[in-house]
Amino acid sequence: MIQCPRGTRDFLPDDMEKRRFYENKLRHTAQTFGFREIETPIFEDAELFILRSGPNVLNELYAFKDKGDRELALRPEMTAPSIRMFVNSMSNDPKPIKIFYFGQCFRYERPQSGRYREFFQFGAELIGSATPETDAEVICLAAAMIKNFGIENYKVHIGHIGVLREAIANAGVPKERTAEVLQKLDKKLYDEARPLLESMNVASNVIDEIFTLTETVGGTEVLSKVPGDAGDYLRQVTDCMHAMGVDNYDIDLGVVRGLDYYTGMVFEVEAPALGAEKQICGGGSYTLSELFGGEKVFSTGFAIGFDRILLAMEKEGHVYEPKGIDAYVLSVTDDMRLKAAEIVSMLRREDISADIDIMGRKMQKAMKYASSVRSKYAVIVGAKEMEEESVTLRDMTSGEQSVVKISELCSKIKG
Amino acid sequence: MIQCPRGTRDFLPDDMEKRRFYENKLRHTAQTFGFREIETPIFEDAELFILRSGPNVLNELYAFKDKGDRELALRPEMTAPSIRMFVNSMSNDPKPIKIFYFGQCFRYERPQSGRYREFFQFGAELIGSATPETDAEVICLAAAMIKNFGIENYKVHIGHIGVLREAIANAGVPKERTAEVLQKLDKKLYDEARPLLESMNVASNVIDEIFTLTETVGGTEVLSKVPGDAGDYLRQVTDCMHAMGVDNYDIDLGVVRGLDYYTGMVFEVEAPALGAEKQICGGGSYTLSELFGGEKVFSTGFAIGFDRILLAMEKEGHVYEPKGIDAYVLSVTDDMRLKAAEIVSMLRREDISADIDIMGRKMQKAMKYASSVRSKYAVIVGAKEMEEESVTLRDMTSGEQSVVKISELCSKIKG
Repeated sequence: MIQCPRGTRDFLPDDMEKRRFYENKLRHTAQTFGFREIETPIFEDAELFILRSGPNVLNELYAFKDKGDRELALRPEMTAPSIRMFVNSMSNDPKPIKIFYFGQCFRYERPQSGRYREFFQFGAELIGSATPETDAEVICLAAAMIKNFGIENYKVHIGHIGVLREAIANAGVPKERTAEVLQKLDKKLYDEARPLLESMNVASNVIDEIFTLTETVGGTEVLSKVPGDAGDYLRQVTDCMHAMGVDNYDIDLGVVRGLDYYTGMVFEVEAPALGAEKQICGGGSYTLSELFGGEKVFSTGFAIGFDRILLAMEKEGHVYEPKGIDAYVLSVTDDMRLKAAEIVSMLRREDISADIDIMGRKMQKAMKYASSVRSKYAVIVGAKEMEEESVTLRDMTSGEQSVVKISELCSKIKG
Repeated sequence: MIQCPRGTRDFLPDDMEKRRFYENKLRHTAQTFGFREIETPIFEDAELFILRSGPNVLNELYAFKDKGDRELALRPEMTAPSIRMFVNSMSNDPKPIKIFYFGQCFRYERPQSGRYREFFQFGAELIGSATPETDAEVICLAAAMIKNFGIENYKVHIGHIGVLREAIANAGVPKERTAEVLQKLDKKLYDEARPLLESMNVASNVIDEIFTLTETVGGTEVLSKVPGDAGDYLRQVTDCMHAMGVDNYDIDLGVVRGLDYYTGMVFEVEAPALGAEKQICGGGSYTLSELFGGEKVFSTGFAIGFDRILLAMEKEGHVYEPKGIDAYVLSVTDDMRLKAAEIVSMLRREDISADIDIMGRKMQKAMKYASSVRSKYAVIVGAKEMEEESVTLRDMTSGEQSVVKISELCSKIKG
């Protein structure tokens, strides 16, 4: 028996209905914020992702050559494709440009709980603006999405990668080795970061200062401890967030997003319901377009792991109930079958979701099937009732039955 | 500048909004018919598609080995994945099973007008039933989708591959060469089919009879010319279609679907607006599950080319107008900026799509931007009006302005 490839999944009808419901919640929230959807190809030139993330990304890419010997790769994320698209086709549009996307991404890694080789990501990018209000707008969109998704317990952690970069540069770390240091700090691997920094001749007390910086965590009161203009900047971000009604955040200079292209504010959202692997969203302000042949343009964006956020919602105890259909039409005798077909079509034209027995089943079996597809009503087409242009309508929950004129059937079912 | 790979496309916001609108129309129609959505991975074991279509399919597949040396392929279609999923996970569900899907498929071929290497397909499969009503239900769903899509001029061509298979078998064509013959007949390449059949020692008059059979085209009156039980069967299909209100079809025994797994009724839908390449939908009844390690189960299904059907609709003169947003909020002076942020959030919480100036623009520039994002209203937040807990509401179409209490703003905008 052929199975779906390792790390991928099939989504059966109940699961898919739930996923579409929540996907549309995210989409609707983004639209309410004035963001508009885009879509990019499932694969790109592998070069695009190498430019964004460095050559190491190849280890985790589904990369392949097409028959024309082009190096392609299934997309591991959608920020790079979005910015490529912006550079190619939207760079002359009025700024700011507010876009979002939803779709499959691919990562070649060992499958583990809640992590798949084919996974689904929702993301948004606000392109062409670099103000505190830009950052606040983006963080508030992420928060609204998570809230509208039904997740009650979540927290936004806001940092500033510029502060850390400056401290590391001032400590004498060569520019090309900054990412290496940041990656250790991102994972709070202080035991590994210290010898690394020492090997670059950073003094012990300076290392301590860098570590202390990453441990600057708390309410807006800690902003006074943030060196340079970043403290003021973040205060403007949080003031605007407060005006927008988002207050469940902390300032956390330990939020480190390792990639080179982040420039200033960075943030993550955690859902404690998920336990150790609790991050559901991450983002920040960055410039990327110049790497793809465009002008340098400031942007702020984020991505939400759709599989993770679904899991968080379920861990909080939310359950999605599949809707089922409105009506199941069956005929008592074979000579009523075409009449039943007429009636099911009439219902469908009136936007009533309706199914019909196509297997010539006896009443009892057909009723059982109607239950299995969660039909609210059964419409029973019998010769006797038909003489009066009527059918029997059965409420599948209560079991109540009544004879209803065909001309009144739609309004009865719509309730 | 990096472009998207050859034969793939980026969808910009206006285009994407249109595509989602129509995608949802198809989805909604399928749900009205009691079909439920599923989703399968973007790639599968290459074997799956070879089992369905034969080894020649490899020439058109995006096939690649993953790092574990598995032979994978981007899906060229979604019937095989759906039936694989049925065999793996749904074979014990109550029959019939009615599923549909929408998504990207991939075909490595020379890109040409309206045909892409990454294309979008909508399809439905009705699994586990083999009655004339099953076939009618599926054809009527295809017709309803096309009609609800807004395409007025389309025609369903209904054939029966069993008739042709039997004639070819009776003529002495070996079973393993049937597909070869059918492919010529599918493309109406009679000049090539004749020598091919002659090389298999089929007599000239028998060849003429086969050709005549494929030219059996017309209303239900031609059904009497259809040999065997197929004529009766198709009459029951069309009787049921008539009861369901679908009459724009003809019987056309020249409808040949070349693949081995089709068993009986086959159909295609054409939209004349598309000119020479006018087919927008194709399907039929088949068995496929036994190839994937399951029991033999009869199914009927079809696929609609989403790119084609969009093109057909546009050629018929339909234009989709992007919706834009409800309100754009801007502040007259800098001290009103946080107030503006409060107001935009209030609107969004009331499900009003609203944007806000985040670039500190002067009034005139902000107004220009509000037009560019097609905002219905501008909400102007000024210090003087704010003293009275009011803002200025400007209708962006008429240019009319009025001072509105903040407490009444949402209901004013909702109209």
